[in-house]
Amino acid sequence: MAMAEASARHGVEILCVGTELLLGNILNGNARWLAEELAALGLPHYRQTVVGDNVERLKQSVLEAVDRSRILITTGGLGPTPDDLTTETLAAVFDTPLEERPDLWVEIQAKLSDSNRTSALSNRKQALLPRGAQVLPNPSGTAPGMIWSPRPGFTVLTFPGVPSEMKQMWSQTAVPWLRQHGGVKDIFVSRLLRFTGIAESTLAEQVADLLELDNPTVAPYAGLGEVKLRLTARGETIEQAKQFLNPVDAALRSRMGLLCFGSDDESLASVVLELLRQRGETIAVAESCTGGGLGAALTTVPRSSEVFLGGVIAYSNAIKQALLDVPAELLDRHGAVSDPVVRHMAEGARQRLGADWSVAVSGVAGPGGGTQAKPVGLVHIAVAGPHGCQTSQEHFGFRRGRLGIQQLSVVRSLDRLRKFLLDRG
Amino acid sequence: MAMAEASARHGVEILCVGTELLLGNILNGNARWLAEELAALGLPHYRQTVVGDNVERLKQSVLEAVDRSRILITTGGLGPTPDDLTTETLAAVFDTPLEERPDLWVEIQAKLSDSNRTSALSNRKQALLPRGAQVLPNPSGTAPGMIWSPRPGFTVLTFPGVPSEMKQMWSQTAVPWLRQHGGVKDIFVSRLLRFTGIAESTLAEQVADLLELDNPTVAPYAGLGEVKLRLTARGETIEQAKQFLNPVDAALRSRMGLLCFGSDDESLASVVLELLRQRGETIAVAESCTGGGLGAALTTVPRSSEVFLGGVIAYSNAIKQALLDVPAELLDRHGAVSDPVVRHMAEGARQRLGADWSVAVSGVAGPGGGTQAKPVGLVHIAVAGPHGCQTSQEHFGFRRGRLGIQQLSVVRSLDRLRKFLLDRG
Repeated sequence: MAMAEASARHGVEILCVGTELLLGNILNGNARWLAEELAALGLPHYRQTVVGDNVERLKQSVLEAVDRSRILITTGGLGPTPDDLTTETLAAVFDTPLEERPDLWVEIQAKLSDSNRTSALSNRKQALLPRGAQVLPNPSGTAPGMIWSPRPGFTVLTFPGVPSEMKQMWSQTAVPWLRQHGGVKDIFVSRLLRFTGIAESTLAEQVADLLELDNPTVAPYAGLGEVKLRLTARGETIEQAKQFLNPVDAALRSRMGLLCFGSDDESLASVVLELLRQRGETIAVAESCTGGGLGAALTTVPRSSEVFLGGVIAYSNAIKQALLDVPAELLDRHGAVSDPVVRHMAEGARQRLGADWSVAVSGVAGPGGGTQAKPVGLVHIAVAGPHGCQTSQEHFGFRRGRLGIQQLSVVRSLDRLRKFLLDRG
Repeated sequence: MAMAEASARHGVEILCVGTELLLGNILNGNARWLAEELAALGLPHYRQTVVGDNVERLKQSVLEAVDRSRILITTGGLGPTPDDLTTETLAAVFDTPLEERPDLWVEIQAKLSDSNRTSALSNRKQALLPRGAQVLPNPSGTAPGMIWSPRPGFTVLTFPGVPSEMKQMWSQTAVPWLRQHGGVKDIFVSRLLRFTGIAESTLAEQVADLLELDNPTVAPYAGLGEVKLRLTARGETIEQAKQFLNPVDAALRSRMGLLCFGSDDESLASVVLELLRQRGETIAVAESCTGGGLGAALTTVPRSSEVFLGGVIAYSNAIKQALLDVPAELLDRHGAVSDPVVRHMAEGARQRLGADWSVAVSGVAGPGGGTQAKPVGLVHIAVAGPHGCQTSQEHFGFRRGRLGIQQLSVVRSLDRLRKFLLDRG
């Protein structure tokens, strides 16, 4: 790829530190997330390395990176335990003494006492940074990172391995720094368009002409129940970049219609809550196979309480009857995973909870409980509103696994609600 | 980690090839899967590298690996397109000519026509292997791999990037080869102990002596609301390795008591469900700030329906009254986030849903809605059972963010239930 060919010796590298990665305990989601962010910044990177919590191999990897790259981004090894070695190893590689930063130590103690933990002596080592390094603040955790240029033309940025902390530090401090010092010449403007109800390969075929563009570039990413297109435009100013980006954004939305549900930080949950908020209407849920996951997805959105009233997790049939007024006779005749039952669950939730809208889900999440007529992966969804109720049957297949079927049920039921609201609600 | 210290120059490395990994398009699930497989084989590996589809950087990575390791495992770059470069680059690095294997070309053509595809000329390049390399057969795809020792004491095994093909080739051919030729001397047995309610730094201090051990090694990992210790023992037989591991496992559990909630694949949810299953008792939930997340956590566990009946997501106060019989007067006097209200929510859920046990959660998840008396991060939990009700106040602090507070509320409420069940239930 042409992008990757350019200026190898001046590139960016990612170094992830953690024996748990070498043992396969966890997926390296940090490397993937950072890779996407770097691509969006227009800062290509050429190599990712993973090493364990081992001084010698960590040293070796850093020394190699110094020879190859201009910016090294590390994750992991900033914790308080003896196997957290990143900061001290970097200091040793560049023969620089560690110094305690008194303000950092005060901050670490305050954070620990805020969350009712006592500061252990071991936490004190998290206040040590090499002389000359700039603090890369960690707003939520006790592990600060650093931005340090131990050699001319070489800067290392360190992050903890905890994804939420790493991401916050990246956005708040590293991105502005990289924009100013990272050698980003052009201004890049990036937008994520989010699609659901279409496979990545199908979407890629339908927008194949746009995937060939040079400015903006358009790149597809698949997620669970979702496909994203990242549009990245470059220009001399933000305005110029946006002038390249906006027509392609508009073309994509118009070509794909309702399959595009939002952009950037929007989620299906935030989009349906906003649609309901604009209408001044409320919603409740009735969940069987998702077990509360639908309510949980809606309530991750701040201010959801203005629209979301609550719901009933009707895992057992007795509760479907007692709290959602599903007739026992219907459960006997059609089974819990059926159109008539989800319809009654949805109507029961609307009435019992006094909501304008409701969504009900009942399905076979597996691994047991499947039959030929109702196999694992079969899920029924009902959306009820002021003007009627719509039901659908989804076949997610057993290969998705229990958790996958539960998560896809949440995505699909939110999408059914969204389309009902936009189509004919 | 001591395990990782041993015999660095004789280790195994993983090299993943693909620009899509550097762009963050996909998660590196192959590296994680291979890492787990290698750990289970007792073949520690010390480094993972990711490079793009670029001849120079691929060459460089291979040359580095030759100096460091005994076995190099590559994924990706075996396809028919011009950016698939792994085989030809390896041949070039070791100055060895490529040869067409006529039987491979016949097989590739047969596979393509089986699946109604025509063989493109480009597929012919997949029949080329360096002279002296042994075919690593790919039963499902058109991209064969190879097992090749271009230098004494150095072997490279190549796999395609498609996970299903890679895994099949690994199990059928690579594992038997590694058992015979891979230098597996010792057998490794690994166990994960899971802790909650204790900070990583505090746990590490309390078991500092055991973190120094050589066999088994003990290494801590932090997660959200959880800390894990991985114990890895080696021996000449599984039995011998277990003899090293079991006493340390027992010592850790006895020293940490109830703070250790389980091992390996167990979760707090699976552990409490199992405790209830053994007692033949059932559970329901009453959720406010978690919005369904507690029910969702319980129902990710297969067969949870035998124990978990369902619940009420009482996000609005009206629903706390209507479906959980919380007196309006209590809500007025104490507010929704208070001991008396969660106590009534829990008792209401037990009675309305006919469960032996219930857990209720109400808190301020933020970002808005906090006051000086009830700040963001304050969460009240009640656990009610046949013999009474226990409540607690948790202070997670605003820094955790809305999602963090919701997730910690789920963890903590499951843990309160677990302790109640074990202590005095």
